[in-house]
Amino acid sequence: MPQQPTALFTDQYELTMLQASLRSGAAHRKSVFEAFARRLPEGRRYGVVAGTGRVLEGLANFRFETEQLDYLSDQRIVNDETIDYLRDFEFTGDIYGYPEGELYFPNSPILVVESTFAEACVLETFILSVLNHDSAIASAASRMVAAAHGRPCVEMGSRRTHEESAVAAARAAVIAGFEATSNLEAGFRYGLKTVGTAAHSFTLLHDSERAAFEAQVASLGRGTTLLVDTYDVAAGVHTAVEVAGPELGAVRLDSGDLVDQARWVRGMLDDLGNHNTRIMVTSDLDEHAIASLQAAPVDAYGVGTSLVTGSGAPTASMVYKLVSRQNDAGEYVDVAKAAKNKTSVGGRKQAVRQLDGRSRATAELVGIGRRPSADENDRDLMVQLVEAGRVDTAYTGAAGVRKATERHTASIGELPGIARKMQRGEPVIATEFITA
Amino acid sequence: MPQQPTALFTDQYELTMLQASLRSGAAHRKSVFEAFARRLPEGRRYGVVAGTGRVLEGLANFRFETEQLDYLSDQRIVNDETIDYLRDFEFTGDIYGYPEGELYFPNSPILVVESTFAEACVLETFILSVLNHDSAIASAASRMVAAAHGRPCVEMGSRRTHEESAVAAARAAVIAGFEATSNLEAGFRYGLKTVGTAAHSFTLLHDSERAAFEAQVASLGRGTTLLVDTYDVAAGVHTAVEVAGPELGAVRLDSGDLVDQARWVRGMLDDLGNHNTRIMVTSDLDEHAIASLQAAPVDAYGVGTSLVTGSGAPTASMVYKLVSRQNDAGEYVDVAKAAKNKTSVGGRKQAVRQLDGRSRATAELVGIGRRPSADENDRDLMVQLVEAGRVDTAYTGAAGVRKATERHTASIGELPGIARKMQRGEPVIATEFITA
Repeated sequence: MPQQPTALFTDQYELTMLQASLRSGAAHRKSVFEAFARRLPEGRRYGVVAGTGRVLEGLANFRFETEQLDYLSDQRIVNDETIDYLRDFEFTGDIYGYPEGELYFPNSPILVVESTFAEACVLETFILSVLNHDSAIASAASRMVAAAHGRPCVEMGSRRTHEESAVAAARAAVIAGFEATSNLEAGFRYGLKTVGTAAHSFTLLHDSERAAFEAQVASLGRGTTLLVDTYDVAAGVHTAVEVAGPELGAVRLDSGDLVDQARWVRGMLDDLGNHNTRIMVTSDLDEHAIASLQAAPVDAYGVGTSLVTGSGAPTASMVYKLVSRQNDAGEYVDVAKAAKNKTSVGGRKQAVRQLDGRSRATAELVGIGRRPSADENDRDLMVQLVEAGRVDTAYTGAAGVRKATERHTASIGELPGIARKMQRGEPVIATEFITA
Repeated sequence: MPQQPTALFTDQYELTMLQASLRSGAAHRKSVFEAFARRLPEGRRYGVVAGTGRVLEGLANFRFETEQLDYLSDQRIVNDETIDYLRDFEFTGDIYGYPEGELYFPNSPILVVESTFAEACVLETFILSVLNHDSAIASAASRMVAAAHGRPCVEMGSRRTHEESAVAAARAAVIAGFEATSNLEAGFRYGLKTVGTAAHSFTLLHDSERAAFEAQVASLGRGTTLLVDTYDVAAGVHTAVEVAGPELGAVRLDSGDLVDQARWVRGMLDDLGNHNTRIMVTSDLDEHAIASLQAAPVDAYGVGTSLVTGSGAPTASMVYKLVSRQNDAGEYVDVAKAAKNKTSVGGRKQAVRQLDGRSRATAELVGIGRRPSADENDRDLMVQLVEAGRVDTAYTGAAGVRKATERHTASIGELPGIARKMQRGEPVIATEFITA
């Protein structure tokens, strides 16, 4: 895990608000902040929570060290009183939320932070950055996995996004059901399965396609995947089979009409006796292209650009709002912004997924200040992630990712089948606030 | 600068290609790789190169340390011969390219890496991650700055993208003409100007809007920016002026119909005598919203989501292709992939921007193996960034960013005016390969 301080992944206004509230005294009012999405990306039926584990890992490094404090002081970004507060900063509150891999819908209370205003406020930017990015990727990935109907999907988009986003994207994709990633740092940090063999440059480096295939097979074995479309695909497949024989693991197609090509490449491989050689396709796939390849003899999908950019929705648009805070008498007061087109609902939330007798999800119920259902069959969605500043490590690291993958599968299993179709539509279940 | 190793920001196939080419011996063939974009995002007239400085900074940390090597070895990702090679890995080649802030067009040779295949190959993923992300953001930012017609734009999108992408996005936005960012880490690392005052939560924290404004003015001074739309905008503006008086720096509007609101808020401020109080707007702006606000009395734009997601084009779609390499006799052979819909042009490139007598850009000329123009008035676009592994530090750090901002302004100044319009269209100048 990178140990670098995360505290400056923060908008300046978090610290100026801290300064002003330290002066007014309101900084120490106990507060409840909530992260939620007002809506899903247009046409999406559900969202997938991801990033929670990274938030918890980053929380451990959310500290202001001398170098950072000197910067804030030298640039006069905040005053000395605020610097003194930040010097000792440590989050001491509680955090509850949807664990990673869980599904979410509009207004699902994905993360609830309870502490002083000061402590909860300075975490805002970092929490939203992580949740917005990772959930956007996981939500797109989940649709791709659904479109692939059991065929393995492999994440290969590192080169199309920021180098650190790429690591988080690989992690989010695996949570949503991707089988593996090409990203080595993601494998290193989170124990994800990694894959990769060769690119067109490897073929071009050698004096002929045959020389390249021979070099690859000599080094990586006959079970490797040969990329057959650098020159002529038909000739490439023939050469691949000649070089690797019947044990050739797979051929990869990275350009052209994939449905058509997969069909005749499959025929050619079968004619050559290579019935066990698989076909992997990797050219600019998204969930719709994957769905359109369902009838083609494809064995695995490599997905890049569209995955790491959230397939049209690169951010989950979550917000982080103050929903309750103490007054001078120490009583909690629910609060909500009233401005046009950005209303929110005040109060500390609890949430359950309402399930019918067949464990099929029928609604997202959100209660204000209490459990929104008396039915024990309804599934509680929120867990305690941090208690008095102490992170529950069940939700972090490689083990946290594995659990999240299982949770995603289980949670998807509760949704009506329509959720897994590619058609655009409303959220597959409605969110209801239960206030009475 | 973060000192963490960057070497595993790499697709596995870079290392398996290394392994296979070490075995075949081709790993040591001198090679030329080129990063370029086959096309601009749909409808865009030009692209802005960004990330080059971050590539150079990352190159210094591109090393495989014991922990990483143990991972690669334990997971049997590569064999011992490859581990031995990586243990001593250090890039010793040359890199040329478009300096940051320069504009680019389809097939502009944005970065050219000359070294052994082994050294150039393992850098691929990292180079593309950085250039694809940062150039996408800078290209979107440049259009927003054009739409703002001299009014300052401020980057505020950190919460909508991965926490490290946010830092790179702030940097790219400033290169493309943004005045400041809310991101403190970006200020800390690159010396960017940072800004920020308060959010709705600060108002909600206090017992009344007036109490919040008083607290903010007491701490941040009368010149601060008050957010006036938590409850009722008209009441908010009145209270803001009562609390801060005629010296109130600015009011911020973050919701509702901004054109309409800006007009009557301006009128109200003027009626109250606050002629010098500025109006900042920040609600889900993109280049089109900014253009539509041109006639409204707005003094500054805060841009978030659409900036950090590249305004519909979150990646620049650059690729990194082997274009030339030695054969067994040590002679260079130009190479190019011939597969459908992904053709590239072989050979080491040079590039100039063709200028007319009034220093107006008329074409992007790309030569194979030589300067593509005899006209000294045409501007050479490529500089040497790395010589025998040594980075030219003129292109890195805070000074590199400042230079890049100047370069962007100068380079934009050469384009015909149509380039700065929001209408979609073809690249504003054509790219011509000069091969004769």
